[in-house]
Order: sequence, then C-alpha cells, then structure tokens
Amino acid sequence: MNEDLANCHRSIAPLIHRTPVLTSRLLNQMLGMEVYFKCENFQRMGAFKMRGAVYAIQKLSTEEKNKGVVTHSSGNFAQALSLAAKSLEIPAYVVMPTNAPEVKKEAVRSYGGTITECTPDLESRQKTTAAIIAEKGAVFIHPSNDYHVILGQGTAAKELLEDHPDLSFIFVPVGGGGLIAGSCLAAKHFGNQCAVIGGEPENADDAYRSLKSGKIESNINPQTIADGLRTELGTINFPIIKGGVKKIIRVSESEIITAMKLIWERMKIVVEPSSAVALAALIREKSQYRGARAGIILSGGNVDLKKLPF
Amino acid sequence: MNEDLANCHRSIAPLIHRTPVLTSRLLNQMLGMEVYFKCENFQRMGAFKMRGAVYAIQKLSTEEKNKGVVTHSSGNFAQALSLAAKSLEIPAYVVMPTNAPEVKKEAVRSYGGTITECTPDLESRQKTTAAIIAEKGAVFIHPSNDYHVILGQGTAAKELLEDHPDLSFIFVPVGGGGLIAGSCLAAKHFGNQCAVIGGEPENADDAYRSLKSGKIESNINPQTIADGLRTELGTINFPIIKGGVKKIIRVSESEIITAMKLIWERMKIVVEPSSAVALAALIREKSQYRGARAGIILSGGNVDLKKLPF
Repeated sequence: MNEDLANCHRSIAPLIHRTPVLTSRLLNQMLGMEVYFKCENFQRMGAFKMRGAVYAIQKLSTEEKNKGVVTHSSGNFAQALSLAAKSLEIPAYVVMPTNAPEVKKEAVRSYGGTITECTPDLESRQKTTAAIIAEKGAVFIHPSNDYHVILGQGTAAKELLEDHPDLSFIFVPVGGGGLIAGSCLAAKHFGNQCAVIGGEPENADDAYRSLKSGKIESNINPQTIADGLRTELGTINFPIIKGGVKKIIRVSESEIITAMKLIWERMKIVVEPSSAVALAALIREKSQYRGARAGIILSGGNVDLKKLPF
Repeated sequence: MNEDLANCHRSIAPLIHRTPVLTSRLLNQMLGMEVYFKCENFQRMGAFKMRGAVYAIQKLSTEEKNKGVVTHSSGNFAQALSLAAKSLEIPAYVVMPTNAPEVKKEAVRSYGGTITECTPDLESRQKTTAAIIAEKGAVFIHPSNDYHVILGQGTAAKELLEDHPDLSFIFVPVGGGGLIAGSCLAAKHFGNQCAVIGGEPENADDAYRSLKSGKIESNINPQTIADGLRTELGTINFPIIKGGVKKIIRVSESEIITAMKLIWERMKIVVEPSSAVALAALIREKSQYRGARAGIILSGGNVDLKKLPF
C-alpha cells in the first residue's frame, strides 16, 4: 500500500502542481494552535480532483486509453477528467444533467471534454453512460469510488506530510469519500501518528451515519452550500475510511459560511464552500486541539463569484 | 541609494512577510507572455503598506518613537501604521473622517490604532492632525510622500527581482506614488534593464497627466472602484517617478473589474481593485509585451466581501 501511493505520486507529478501550504498568524492566534493549509484551490483546474483523474487514466492500458474515458459528474471531477484526458491526449466523455449550470458545462468544454446531456434522474444518467460505453468503448471512471482515484487524491495529504511531517491531525472534507480515504492512506504510511478527521455538513451527514451504523448510508435530497459534499461513500473507499478515520465532525451551514469568510478575508484566497467545511469542523471542536499542529486540506476554489453567500 | 534600499530591507525584514510570487499557466497562455505576480495581498494586514509603515517608524529617534506616530488615512495606510506601531510597541494615532466605513475603523482599532474623527474636509483633517501633534508630540507620517515610506514600499519589487532577476517589466498600480517610486528605485538598483510601467484608472489619472505636464496634477473628486488610487503624487515621490517610470497606462473601470475577476477566478486569490489595475494595464497593451517576462505587484487584498463588483 505504501508503495502504491508513492508510485502514484511519482506517476502523476509531471501533470499536477505541488500546491503550496499556507499559514496565517492571525488564524493561529484565533485558534490557539498551528494550522497548515494545503491549498488545492491552487491545483490545476482548481481542485484536488485533478490528482485522481490523472492517475486513473494513467493506469489504463494503451488500448483503453485510445478509446477514452467517461464519467458522470456535474462538478469538479467532470472538469478534472476532461483536463487530465486532454493532457494525456485521449478523449473524455462527460454525462451531465440538462439542468447543470451553464458555467460548469462551459468549464468542461474549455478543458476539452465532450458533454452528453441526460435528464436529471438516475435512470437516464445510467442509460446515457452505458450508451457511451457501448458506442465508444470508453472506460468508466468513478469520481470517488475507484482505488486509483483514491490514491491520486491521497497525494495531497502525502505532500502536506512531506512538508510538515509532525502534524498530529489532518482535517479533510467528506463528500464521495475519495479525498478522505486517500488521506487515510497517506497518514498511515507517511504520517507520524497523524489522525485523520473528517468535516461534513449536518445536512449531508451520510459518512457520519455510515461510521455509526457500519454500513454505507444515503443522503436524501441533501441541501447544503457545500455542493461538492452531497455525494455518498462507496464500497471501495468506505472500508479504508472505516479503518482510518478517527472521527467525523458535523457542521451547520452557518458554520461553513463563517469558516469560508474567515479564509477569504484573513488568508486572501478563494476557496469553495466544501473547502471551508474542514476548517469549520476544526473550529467547532478547537478546544480539543489547543496547542496542536494540524493540517487542513482546502479542496478547491471553483466558485461562482456571482453567487457568494456573504 | 542602492544602499538605502538594501538597509531598509534588512531593517524591516523581521516585521514583514516575504510574500510569495505566483504564476498561472492559464494567464500566461492567455497573455502570450510570462507573468510573475508579487502577492502583497498576503502581506501582514493585507497590503504592501506595511513595509513603508514599519520603516518610517524604525527611522525615528527613540524619543520620537516614545511619543508615537500620527497619520490621516481612511485606507490601508491607517491599518499599516497601526499594526507597525503595535509591533514596535509605540502609540499610533489615526485621523479618520466621520464618514469612513465602520469596517475600516474597526480594522484600525483591531490593530491597536487610536482613532480621532474629523469632519470629512481638508481643513478639519489638518486641524485635527495638528492638534494631535501639538498635544502628544506624535510624528506625522505621510502615507506615500515620505522617503522612508517609499523605500519600504520598494522592497516588494526588490524581493520580486531577487526571485526573478530577468524581468524586463514591472507593472505597478499608481495612487499616491509611494509604491511606484519605490519600485523605480528597486528596478534601477536591483533590476537588469527592468522598466517600470504604471497602471492608473482613467478616472483618477493625475500621475499620467503629471508626467505629461511635468508638474504634479490633481484629481478632482475622482470616482473609481480602485479606492486606493484616488490620491495624488507628492513632491518627494514625483521626481523619482519622473526619472524612473517608462510610461503610465490608463484603464477603464470595466477593464479593472475584468482583470480583478480574472485574478479571483483563475488564480484563486483575493485582491482589491487597486491590485487589478496593474494587470488591466498589461492586458490593454499586451500585444507590445508578447514573449516578455513581466512582474506585476498585487498591492493588497483588503476588500469588503459584501460589496464585490461581480
């Protein structure tokens, strides 16, 4: 496993940015600890998803690569797979619901992805995806429940731990589970007794409930500003999360917005609401981490500037 | 002169951040050149003004320091002088008009500055400032027309040129003239035939007109979103600017907003409108700089998130 992550990192390194780690004296004072922010908002296409998308494609055979890749996503993974495919010079097909925001479709197109629209329901999505697989022979890549994707996402925490090997905690937002599962692998193999703690919106707390019940739980029509975290865990990442995550802290919508504002105003960087969830989780239980050195994965920075919650 | 800037930099280094230089592959492609962004939005208190404020205080005698410093500003310099004074453990008095935004007063207070309000006119401002000087013995520090302030501001360009010695151009926003005058000194002594180019709002183009006429021109009630650039040149910085600036490019309000949006969306960092003016200037005349390596000073990141122009 150790080697898996190291191999992955070596493989994707030429196609991703090694993102900087920022600190804020002011936030450290405010929180009574030392916090290290891994800035995946500065990653190519604006989010950590680029890492896993690149690796998933790299692990395909030449024959598979030539036929291209397909995914369904209306968010960052669609853009990531499109840009990764473009960088590796293969076709990418993205299934998006007709009601996906035009700005997201435009982003996928700008990265070279070919969009096929479906009606916004599960059946149409699956049928449309299956049709592309049948017609093009494209390989389906799941946004989060794929071992190579998980390894790719884990390289963010690996880099953070290489820069700061003495972190006692890494706080990670939990959506589909790819990022936090990868972070668990990184903490296990590259950390020094570093615990992984998840941050999750109260309104989409499937991972919190899944850890309680021991089986994968669902979100029913989740309403949260952290739109990247509405998805659910999968069969490949859940066992890793179950074995590796110390706890999941749930946060309210207003806590997410407060944390997001703090990052924008104090650190002067643009992050999406999902990124703020990890800081919100740390803030909620900060008294337990006083004096500690903690990492936070800022997952991405793709926001619609016309729709800010401030 | 060379030594002045080097001495200044050594002196202020412990109290300022050496800010990072960011690049964007996407913006480079878009502009057809290599652009290096000096991120003074990450400076302490969120703007380059911290540099000059620290140095102006450091150059005072012990007796002067004990009595404190005073300035009039409703912007970044008020905050900078307050934080610099606090860091050096001396009092700071700030004269602000009664109609200054509460958020700016709050910022000055949070950095430890003592605010004295005046009515929003020149006479009241001067009288109030004079009264503080008479009562407290505090030394007046001008926000931009002060040689030590100019040297301090010049250290941003000096650091940029240390990191990237081969820049052919540095684009700098022009307001009161402290930053661009300091940048001229840095380019002259630390650059390799590096030209300094100013960016200025069309609606506050006093520096452009001053360079044409050869004497300091005024702005009459300037209306620009780049609120840091409404001020005018002074007798100390103007000669340096006249001798050192290659040209000043004027930009419209919509060009400023477009450049600002580009920085936020593509670079994922928070900058204030004044910072975007330098990029807007480069974009306006980009065909003249094709293939060049250019620096841009992003002056600061203090914006009211409730009042964004997007």
